[in-house]
This record gives sequence, structure tokens and C-alpha cells, in this order.
Amino acid sequence: MTETDCIFCKIIQGEIPSTTVHDDELVTAFRDINPVAPTHILIVPKKHIEDNNAFEAGADDAVAARLFAVAKQLAQAEGIAESGYRLIMNCGSDGGQEIQHLHLHLIGGRKMQYPMG
Amino acid sequence: MTETDCIFCKIIQGEIPSTTVHDDELVTAFRDINPVAPTHILIVPKKHIEDNNAFEAGADDAVAARLFAVAKQLAQAEGIAESGYRLIMNCGSDGGQEIQHLHLHLIGGRKMQYPMG
Repeated sequence: MTETDCIFCKIIQGEIPSTTVHDDELVTAFRDINPVAPTHILIVPKKHIEDNNAFEAGADDAVAARLFAVAKQLAQAEGIAESGYRLIMNCGSDGGQEIQHLHLHLIGGRKMQYPMG
Repeated sequence: MTETDCIFCKIIQGEIPSTTVHDDELVTAFRDINPVAPTHILIVPKKHIEDNNAFEAGADDAVAARLFAVAKQLAQAEGIAESGYRLIMNCGSDGGQEIQHLHLHLIGGRKMQYPMG
């Protein structure tokens, strides 16, 4: 289930290179090309799901849960599990979503700003 | 599975009042008392899970998936599903986590800032 004009689908298909840090049957993860912090990884479902509004409760539950599980694993691998990190999912225009393929940002390695959002 | 000194567990138990906007068997949601945007809701597992590092893959998958599902429902109820929103989970000191009971922020009703994090 891919979209031919979707950059993240092309990365998942191996048509566009990325710095992959995780890959399983449901989810892949790679470094953001414009990092906002020392660690900035995008955790991305392999299925083309446009955004959080398109998540189907039930059918996509395993994917949704895997996003958090991979974030936990990668935070440990990056050495930021104890220092802390922020997980962000942007949805739509006000959210600042830039790629219309759902993704969870894992950001760490510095203090996150406050107020957030 | 509650913690006696946890503010969110006390809210879930009804010992501290909150403006509840959702309640089901796994998750509750209420408005942040210090909102950073017109919509600022906290989506909280009823089980006391400290943070994303404490999520147990498998055992907590239904809870993890429900967080996104409730965010989707509430975004629709708040009228921000189309305009957009940002979902944030802070973990630990660098993440800016203030309450040691896992929660997902649903923030919308204005443009989110960039760079994020």
C-alpha cells in the first residue's frame, strides 16, 4: 500500500536513500535530513497512512503501538533514554506537517523548548 | 495500578477535579490547566505508566494505540481535525516531562511553532 508520489514511500522502497536506524515489518526509521537537535529520527509506518486522522482504530493498532515501541528502543540506542526526549507527531497545516505520510519525530540530545507546540 | 502520590492517578480516581473530555476503559482525557493553545488536552492511560521508556511492548500495545485513536476523535470533536494539530509526548528531563505519568498532549487551534522541539 504505497503512493507513487510520496517521498517516504520512496524511501521505504529504497528508491531514495536515507540513514536507516531501524527496520521491521511494520515500521522503518531514519534520520531527519534537517535535524533540529543532536538526535532527530523519523519513525514511519511502512503502510501509507496520510496522518493521524487517517489512522484506523483496530486495523492500525499494531502500527500505532509500534511507533512508541520503536521510539523507546531508539532512545536507548541513541543514549537519550535517561536524559530524555520529545516525541512529536504533526497533523495538517496548523500542526506543521510537511510530508503527507504519518511519522513520529524522536527528538533529543538537548533540552526541549517550553512552552511547547 | 495507581500511585498514591501521582496527580494524574488522583484525577483518574476522581480525587482531584478536571475538565474531562473523554473517558474509556483504557484512557482518560482532560484539558490542560495551563493551555499553550486554544485546544490543549492531555490524553492519559488509566494505568500508571511513568513514561515512554516504561511502555511494555505487547502488554501495553492497546493503550498505546488508544492514545492516537482518542487524539483523532478529540481533534474531530474540537473542530481542529482539518485545520491541524500537534501531538507531543515528553519523556524525562530533556523532554520537559512535568508529571511522571505518561500523557500525550493534543495541541491545536493555532499554527504550531517551527522549528519544533
